[in-house]
Amino acid sequence: MEEPGQIHSVGVVGTGAWGTVIACLFAGRCAGTVLYARGEDEAALLAKQRENARFLPGVRLPDALAVTADARVALSGADLVVLATPSQRLRENLQRLASALPAGVTLLCASKGIEIGSGLRMSQVIADVLGTGQAVALTLSGPNLSGEIAAGLPAATVVAGPPEHAGRAAAVQALLSNEQLRVYTSDDQPGVELGGALKNVIAIACGVCDGLGYGHNARAGLITRGLAEMTRLAVACGGRPATLAGLAGLGDLLTTVASAASRNYSLGVALGSGTTLAEARAATVHIAEGVPTAHAALDLARRLDVELPITERLCALLDATATPVEGARALMQRALGAE
Amino acid sequence: MEEPGQIHSVGVVGTGAWGTVIACLFAGRCAGTVLYARGEDEAALLAKQRENARFLPGVRLPDALAVTADARVALSGADLVVLATPSQRLRENLQRLASALPAGVTLLCASKGIEIGSGLRMSQVIADVLGTGQAVALTLSGPNLSGEIAAGLPAATVVAGPPEHAGRAAAVQALLSNEQLRVYTSDDQPGVELGGALKNVIAIACGVCDGLGYGHNARAGLITRGLAEMTRLAVACGGRPATLAGLAGLGDLLTTVASAASRNYSLGVALGSGTTLAEARAATVHIAEGVPTAHAALDLARRLDVELPITERLCALLDATATPVEGARALMQRALGAE
Repeated sequence: MEEPGQIHSVGVVGTGAWGTVIACLFAGRCAGTVLYARGEDEAALLAKQRENARFLPGVRLPDALAVTADARVALSGADLVVLATPSQRLRENLQRLASALPAGVTLLCASKGIEIGSGLRMSQVIADVLGTGQAVALTLSGPNLSGEIAAGLPAATVVAGPPEHAGRAAAVQALLSNEQLRVYTSDDQPGVELGGALKNVIAIACGVCDGLGYGHNARAGLITRGLAEMTRLAVACGGRPATLAGLAGLGDLLTTVASAASRNYSLGVALGSGTTLAEARAATVHIAEGVPTAHAALDLARRLDVELPITERLCALLDATATPVEGARALMQRALGAE
Repeated sequence: MEEPGQIHSVGVVGTGAWGTVIACLFAGRCAGTVLYARGEDEAALLAKQRENARFLPGVRLPDALAVTADARVALSGADLVVLATPSQRLRENLQRLASALPAGVTLLCASKGIEIGSGLRMSQVIADVLGTGQAVALTLSGPNLSGEIAAGLPAATVVAGPPEHAGRAAAVQALLSNEQLRVYTSDDQPGVELGGALKNVIAIACGVCDGLGYGHNARAGLITRGLAEMTRLAVACGGRPATLAGLAGLGDLLTTVASAASRNYSLGVALGSGTTLAEARAATVHIAEGVPTAHAALDLARRLDVELPITERLCALLDATATPVEGARALMQRALGAE
């Protein structure tokens, strides 16, 4: 597959907060940027109001950004297609949109997660649906609260892809970088993808620790040991330790546990304060991505013979077979060892 | 030098908050624990009040903990001597106490820093003063706010030493561990010592970022890239990346930037809010350890040909040759690269 040069046209799939912010960023640099909305009504509303009032209120869409519900208009002429849908919907979205995607297009996946059932990373889901010859999947991941990026506060992020497509990652890097957003490239796609998925699991555990009132030492210890187990699993899947210690692993984890808006961290705080998962589920329609990811990660770890003590205790808590205090005690009483 | 077995007698030098907490921890496990205070009056007061009212108010000293101002009583029969003095005073304290130290004693250094002028790590200062044959220096470091440990909240820490003295580190681990404190061993002493010293530099930078109001994304990015540069320098000095990503590097950094009580982080917030270093210095008698360490680290990095972009901009800010905004802009505008 020929490596494309400059990117002239970008299609963005997904009108949540993050998809909208990404579309705005590209529209500022690339005149041919189109945001694809699934419904005609939504597309018409966004095009008329020039604001995503539901997910990103107060941010004006750049005039250069076109909005359409016609997949062919949005995608068939694109050099780059950004996928910013919920991770568990990626497969169905790809199946629906496949015929509109030009052959050899670069896909930039901004969804973070592991597919339930298959255990596949997002780039693997893309390869599974489209075949490896039809498109090149890159990953966008990092400590990126969308509201802060929309407000022009400084941030850094990572574009990862397979080493043989470094040229495509560099083209995205060049286009997406600006004075506020610093973009790094990475050829460790497994590491970047698993960092983004597994940080939600540790964020729940960190919330439990805070819900229990255990303090800064325990929180720092948990994040650190949590990063160690994220790293062990990622390395067993072909990732590199430095990637997990970087923006798409540690960085993203830190942003998640710092944000009261994180569903994963907030769920953990509720669990640590004595709420059960069933009660937390009854109270909200949103489900934290870290819950299915915790079980998927534990399954994967068992197959690969990797120890995930924090994830294991968190799963017991989610399954209501242990209390938060019992989980914490079990972690503290493990056999002493070297770090 | 013969590897000693069990530890029967512990002497603790340093009556600050951390030295006092360490003495309390050892006294709970080892009847022969003595806290050494420099002055007769201070020793008498601690022994009578059974409280360190100045540095650790509200915490009762265990009955088993003896207090003395007689170095020979405190140290000459000890199997283990803990050094918990300010890092820049370690050399003078060792010179004063050397004659009271038994030959072959294990020293556990809890001070974090790089000696100004010499650029030596604490274990190197010990070797420089005592000679390598006279004592074995171990290091105690990790995310350990003393107030939380005194309150019995859960925490983890690291005891590091040279590989050939793993038995001594394991003996300290066994003695210091309890249900609240999880102790890991490490044979990467350079990594552990540099983690504890360099985290103060990044903590100042993180405070600057927060003082500027740059948000969670920028903070997470700065901590992550800060850890990357701590790691580069530590590796150039013989440390391992995993050590810096562990409790004594990342973990300690996280506790420091989470604590309003940290002098380093607070200094950064003040600098980011427009206060100059000279003004901050005039307002307090305390000097943040990260200020001299930043310059010492930059000197060391230049000798070793290691890039420390954050530390370099922080030094320019400390020297008042750049504003916080200029420093941040310079970091965001560096050449784009791979992570």
